[in-house]
Amino acid sequence: MTKRVTLLGATGSIGMRTLELVASFSDEFTVAGLAARGSNVELIADLCRKYSPQAVALLDPAARDRLAGLLPAPRPELLAGIEGLVAVARDVPADIVVSALVGGVGLLPTMAAIEAGRTLALANKETLVMAGSLMTAAARRRGVALLPVDSEHSAVFQCLVGHSRADVHRVLLTASGGPFRELPRERFAHVTVQDALQHPTWKMGAKITIDSATLMNKGLEVIEARWLFDVAPDQVQIVVHPQSIVHSMVEYVDGSVIAQLGVADMGVPILYALTYPERRPAPAARLDLTRVGPLTFFAPDVERFPCLRLARAALEQAGAAPVVLNAANEVAVDAFLTGRLPFVRIAVLIERLLEDLAPGRLESIEACVAIDA
Amino acid sequence: MTKRVTLLGATGSIGMRTLELVASFSDEFTVAGLAARGSNVELIADLCRKYSPQAVALLDPAARDRLAGLLPAPRPELLAGIEGLVAVARDVPADIVVSALVGGVGLLPTMAAIEAGRTLALANKETLVMAGSLMTAAARRRGVALLPVDSEHSAVFQCLVGHSRADVHRVLLTASGGPFRELPRERFAHVTVQDALQHPTWKMGAKITIDSATLMNKGLEVIEARWLFDVAPDQVQIVVHPQSIVHSMVEYVDGSVIAQLGVADMGVPILYALTYPERRPAPAARLDLTRVGPLTFFAPDVERFPCLRLARAALEQAGAAPVVLNAANEVAVDAFLTGRLPFVRIAVLIERLLEDLAPGRLESIEACVAIDA
Repeated sequence: MTKRVTLLGATGSIGMRTLELVASFSDEFTVAGLAARGSNVELIADLCRKYSPQAVALLDPAARDRLAGLLPAPRPELLAGIEGLVAVARDVPADIVVSALVGGVGLLPTMAAIEAGRTLALANKETLVMAGSLMTAAARRRGVALLPVDSEHSAVFQCLVGHSRADVHRVLLTASGGPFRELPRERFAHVTVQDALQHPTWKMGAKITIDSATLMNKGLEVIEARWLFDVAPDQVQIVVHPQSIVHSMVEYVDGSVIAQLGVADMGVPILYALTYPERRPAPAARLDLTRVGPLTFFAPDVERFPCLRLARAALEQAGAAPVVLNAANEVAVDAFLTGRLPFVRIAVLIERLLEDLAPGRLESIEACVAIDA
Repeated sequence: MTKRVTLLGATGSIGMRTLELVASFSDEFTVAGLAARGSNVELIADLCRKYSPQAVALLDPAARDRLAGLLPAPRPELLAGIEGLVAVARDVPADIVVSALVGGVGLLPTMAAIEAGRTLALANKETLVMAGSLMTAAARRRGVALLPVDSEHSAVFQCLVGHSRADVHRVLLTASGGPFRELPRERFAHVTVQDALQHPTWKMGAKITIDSATLMNKGLEVIEARWLFDVAPDQVQIVVHPQSIVHSMVEYVDGSVIAQLGVADMGVPILYALTYPERRPAPAARLDLTRVGPLTFFAPDVERFPCLRLARAALEQAGAAPVVLNAANEVAVDAFLTGRLPFVRIAVLIERLLEDLAPGRLESIEACVAIDA
């Protein structure tokens, strides 16, 4: 019996790595459905030829039409729009849905997969940031497992397996610190897009690489951890660890700390989510601790990285504040990447938007989507 | 309901720390039986007054008589000799037996506790080294849990909980490297007892401190791990880690490494064994990784530390070889501590004894005790 995988966000870095693993373990996995924004139709056509999905949904209707032109019949069912993404997540029979769209666009399809009772491998952190309370409640109600794909949250998940949740003292998320870990405060004003796209240890997409440079990525991960692991906000702490070898840790009440370590390769957490509770032989180089040099750990600097403070404030304010935080960050990062906003103004813009859009309670996914828009 | 604890090796460093924890959690634990060699009768009399055990056994019959003189009636039942130690382990009702005698003397009482079906917290590594195959078989037959108390093996145990044994690639035991980690080879000839008793990170008894200086301690732990975790000898590897923060690790087939970290305090693994599968608030300072400095890892040097090679050879030879290894090491360490053998001759003496006492199969605990004698 192969495991049928539906992949939301097929052409991003997580999506492509997932498909590589599906190809490497082709006797174990088949592709059920694919969804993407549709910015690279040629690539999606290639993926259709290689993986023969039953259905493909593209957010952009024009891209769907172009894809139809590239694929001769018999071809997968082709859908478009957010309702197309939702249909692929909900209606195509699958044993696991990998949610790897970047940003708030993933929210409705991801919720649809949960409501359909599908095991979820979750890489789309913005959905949990926006609607963690609603998503985890739905997952509990439907008995759906939420398996984290983020390297940090996969690490925490692996450090919790088999131990009592009641004994958790703190979750310790490690952060590489990004490219500006040691940059003096006065130099932040001169940071270019080029500078910010140079991540020291992980190769990732543009949005998450900028989030890693502002440390907003880690702020979002704090919110994500709060929901994924049902811990209080102040039980989630950040430790800067420039080597990215320790992917995260859990400290228990007796002082024991359980950590997950490995090379920096997303293949490991993706494969673990796909095969959980089993494991498969390493898709990556093995860690040799005698060759990686010293491992160091530092407290994060919230003065130079104010996004950490903003994310924690939004989490504590709760309600719609995290939705505003996430949407404001998406807007600010886009403005930075397109040269319309200096790096240091990213946090300033987010803070202003957080103050202005007086956040209320968050009662439904529809409210969430409306605030996001 | 309090948990009744029988403690074999009450006056050693593990025994005393165990009793401190029993006193700290006095609403959870009571002392059922105590056993010791009997070299410090005054201390044992104090422990009897403080913990009111039902029975006390001393290996030395004369010490038992002196203890009787120190304790007015009503006093605990007082036993002597190895049969006294066995009786305390086997006959005194207890929920857990902590096996913390140092050396081969612990073997028969520990086996008696297993045969009596008692949960065992195992700190006496020599018993597993001598009779790992027999002990683990008896524990399986009787359905007895063997809970490691050694900081390294407790770490491995914690890194295995909840994960599939079939997915274990390697067990990575960390070693501080002892006081001579950086000592040039030519200087080993001048090592004094005083030098060897200075352990850089752990405060322990004399025998185990010397074993840490020769790294025989780590060699014995490799054998112990092979039995405790049912892994092949070559699946147990040593990593030198001078800071003693990472207490050990398990590497899984997918490249994930799970590690247990903490301050160097035996209270943590002892308490974990006493309360497993639950935990209790830290008996020790909490680990703050941002304050411990860099963590470093090195391959062990078997040239300067030949005991590592001898232990692995004995494990691979199997049968009675580990019993000879352990007995030869006890003799050699005693000779070193009493000034009759230079430090560098410890390994030489063990190697000669291993070669001379052509080891055969090991069929019973009695054979084990005979070879040890």
